[in-house]
Amino acid sequence: MKPVYFDNAATTPMRDEVVNAITEVMKNNFGNPSSSHSFGRSSKSLIEQSRKTIAGYLNVSAGEIIFTSGGTEADNLILKSAVKDLKVTKIITSKIEHHAVLHTVEALQKDFNITVNYVNIDKKGHIDFSHLESLLQGSEKTLVSLMHVNNEIGNILDLERAATLAKTYNALFHTDAVQSVGHYKMDLQDIPVDFLVAAAHKFHGPKGVGFAFIRKNSSLKPLVLGGEQERGLRAGTESIHNIVGLEKALKLAFNNLTSEMLYVKELKQYFINKIKTEIPDVKFNGDCVNDEKSTYTLVNVCLPVLPEKASMMLFQLDLKGIACSKGSACQSGSSKSSHVLAEILSEEDLQKPSIRFSFSIYNTKEEIDYVVDVLKTFIEH
Amino acid sequence: MKPVYFDNAATTPMRDEVVNAITEVMKNNFGNPSSSHSFGRSSKSLIEQSRKTIAGYLNVSAGEIIFTSGGTEADNLILKSAVKDLKVTKIITSKIEHHAVLHTVEALQKDFNITVNYVNIDKKGHIDFSHLESLLQGSEKTLVSLMHVNNEIGNILDLERAATLAKTYNALFHTDAVQSVGHYKMDLQDIPVDFLVAAAHKFHGPKGVGFAFIRKNSSLKPLVLGGEQERGLRAGTESIHNIVGLEKALKLAFNNLTSEMLYVKELKQYFINKIKTEIPDVKFNGDCVNDEKSTYTLVNVCLPVLPEKASMMLFQLDLKGIACSKGSACQSGSSKSSHVLAEILSEEDLQKPSIRFSFSIYNTKEEIDYVVDVLKTFIEH
Ligand SMILES: Cc1ncc(COP(=O)(O)O)c(C=O)c1O
Ligand SMILES: Cc1ncc(COP(=O)(O)O)c(C=O)c1O
Repeated sequence: MKPVYFDNAATTPMRDEVVNAITEVMKNNFGNPSSSHSFGRSSKSLIEQSRKTIAGYLNVSAGEIIFTSGGTEADNLILKSAVKDLKVTKIITSKIEHHAVLHTVEALQKDFNITVNYVNIDKKGHIDFSHLESLLQGSEKTLVSLMHVNNEIGNILDLERAATLAKTYNALFHTDAVQSVGHYKMDLQDIPVDFLVAAAHKFHGPKGVGFAFIRKNSSLKPLVLGGEQERGLRAGTESIHNIVGLEKALKLAFNNLTSEMLYVKELKQYFINKIKTEIPDVKFNGDCVNDEKSTYTLVNVCLPVLPEKASMMLFQLDLKGIACSKGSACQSGSSKSSHVLAEILSEEDLQKPSIRFSFSIYNTKEEIDYVVDVLKTFIEH
Repeated sequence: MKPVYFDNAATTPMRDEVVNAITEVMKNNFGNPSSSHSFGRSSKSLIEQSRKTIAGYLNVSAGEIIFTSGGTEADNLILKSAVKDLKVTKIITSKIEHHAVLHTVEALQKDFNITVNYVNIDKKGHIDFSHLESLLQGSEKTLVSLMHVNNEIGNILDLERAATLAKTYNALFHTDAVQSVGHYKMDLQDIPVDFLVAAAHKFHGPKGVGFAFIRKNSSLKPLVLGGEQERGLRAGTESIHNIVGLEKALKLAFNNLTSEMLYVKELKQYFINKIKTEIPDVKFNGDCVNDEKSTYTLVNVCLPVLPEKASMMLFQLDLKGIACSKGSACQSGSSKSSHVLAEILSEEDLQKPSIRFSFSIYNTKEEIDYVVDVLKTFIEH
C-alpha cells in the first residue's frame, strides 16, 4: 500500500496544472511588478489578472482582494488594523478559532486593553446565536471574528446569519475562511462580511500565499510597511508565481466544484459508514456526521482506546503509512492537546485519542478500507 | 536585439537550477512541516536543511535564521519588535534607507513616540561616522539601522565599522542587506550585527521569500502571530518550495561568487568606460565609480538631458527594449522622484534624469554597447 494521506485539512498536494502554471511564471515572468518597463508590466498584469479572477469567484471587486503570504498573515493584518486603525475596542470571537486568530486577539487584548468576549459553543461545536446577540449589545466599536469552517471538527458556521446579525448591531465582521474557500461557493454580495481570509495551500495551491478580502472603504492600514504594493495595504515584492498558482488552484477548484465535492462527500460518507460498522464504539466529534452543518472534507473521531495505548496511536498509524492528525497541524508535532476539543468533549472523552481524517480528490475508498482496518486492528490488539 | 534587462537591483531572473529545485519540491514534498507524520517530516527536514545551509554561509547557527515572505517583512519584524518588545526608545538610521525601513521607522515614531535620528550623509552618499558616534551618546536604549548596500546608488557601508561602533555604545545594530546577501561573502562572527535581512529574488532566487538573521538570545517577538512555526518567531505554514529555492539560489551564488563577481564587475567597468567616452557630460551619482565603496552590480548616472526631454527618457528606453529604473522599483511606476537622490544631488542635477542600470551574470557587453548607443542618440537628438 502506498502511503495514505488523510490530512488534507493541514495542507493539500498541488494539482499538476498548478505546478505547471507556477513553473511557467518562474521561467518567463521575472520582472518586478512595481517596475514600469515591459518586464515589470507583464508581471503586474499577471497579478492583476489573478486578482480579477479571484474577485470574480467571490463576486467582489478586484480592488478588494489583497494578496498576502498566507492565511495567518491575512488574519493578523485584519485583526491588528481593526484595533489599531479602526479603533475597535471590543472583539467577539470563540475559543475554537484557529491560533492565527486566537493568539492575535490575545495579544491585542494585552497591548490595547480591549474587551474580548468569547461566544458560547454548544457540545456539537456550534456557536450560540442568542449569546452572540447578547454580546453584541452595547455601544463599543466591535469586531466579530468567527471562522467559516472549523479546521479541527469541520463545523460550518451560518455565515450569512452571523454576519447579518453583526451588521444589525453595527459591528464589523471578519471570517477566517481558510478551510472553506475553494471548497464552497460564496457570494460576498449576499453575505455582509467586511473581511475574509483564505490560503491557497488548502485547495491544492502553493504554500506561502493567500489573500484577504477587505471590503471597500474599510480604511484598514498595512501590517507590513514599505513600498506601495497591493494598493498600499501590503508592502514587499509580490510572489508572482505563487499568486498565479493561487489563481490557477482556485479556478480549477471552482470549475470542478460540483463533481469534486460529490466525490469527496462520498468518501467521507463511506468512511463514516465503514468505521461505524467496524468500530461500533467510535464517537464523532463536533457535528461532523451532519451533512449540512459540517464540511464534506473531514471527520474527527474519538476512538475507544485505553489511555495507556492512546499515546502510541498516531505513531502506529504513521508506521503503517497513514498520515492524519490529532488537532491541527500546528499541534500535531507537539504534545499539546487540542484547544478545540477541550471546549466540547467530556473529561472522559478527552482521555481517548481523537483523530482528524481529512480527504481530497486524490483519496480513494480503498484507502479508507485500509485505514479503518488498521484502526480496528490497533484497537483490538 | 532582444530586450535588455538592466534592472537587476529591482529583481533578478531565476537560475534554471532554482526553478528546477522549486518544481521538484512542489511535485514531491507537499506535507505541512508542522505535521508529525512522514509527509510532514520530509517537508520539515527540507526547511531545516535550508536553514542550515544558509546559516553556514553566514557563519551563524541555524536557529538564528528565520524565514519570512521577503526583505520587507523581515525589516518590519525586527524594527517593530525592537521597539515594542525590546523597549528601544531611539532609532538611528539614514534618509537613504529603503522604504521598508524608513516607513516602518516613521510609523514607530508616531505610534510609540520614540526618538528618531538620521545620520548625516555626504555628497557621495556615505554616512558620516563621527556624526553617528555623536548620535550614539546618551543613555536611551538605541537601535541603529543602516543598510549594507544602497539599492539606488550602490554605496557600500563599512558594516564592521558601523556595527562595532554601535556595540561600543551598547546600541543594537540592524542592517538591511537585501542588496548584498548573495553578492558578497559575509562572516557574521566577525561583524557584530544583531539583525540582518535578505531577500531571495535579488540573487536569482524566488520572489516572496527572504530571511531575518536574528542573533541568539535577542528576545524578539513575532510580527505575525498564530502557530509555532519558525521557533515561534513567524507564524504561518511555510512556503517550502520558496525556501528551498532560496537555499538553492544562495548556494549557487556562493559557489560561483568569485567568477561571477569578476564577470559582473567587468560589465560595470565596461559600462562606465563606454558611457564616459560616448557621453562625456555624464555624472555618476553616489560613489558608484568607486570600486571599493560601491557594489559591482550597479551604476546610477545623471544624464545631460534637458528638462523638457527628461520625462520621456525612461519611456523611450522602454520602447527600445531597455529595462532600467529611475530610483527603486517601488518608485519607478510612480511619478515620485527618488528620496535617495534628493539627499545627495544638487538642485540642478535633480532636474536631469538619473537612471540606475544594474547588472547580472545574464548581461553582456553587447547589451551595454546597445544601451549606451541608444542613450547617446536620445541625448543628441
Ligand atoms: C482555519 C485556519 N486558519 C488559518 C490557517 C493558517 O493558514 P496559513 O498556515 O496558510 O497561514 C489555517 C491552516 O493552517 C487554518 O486551518
Ligand atoms: C535595500 C532593500 N531593502 C528591502 C527591499 C525589499 O525586499 P522585498 O521586496 O523582497 O520585500 C528591497 C527591494 O525590494 C531592497 O532593495
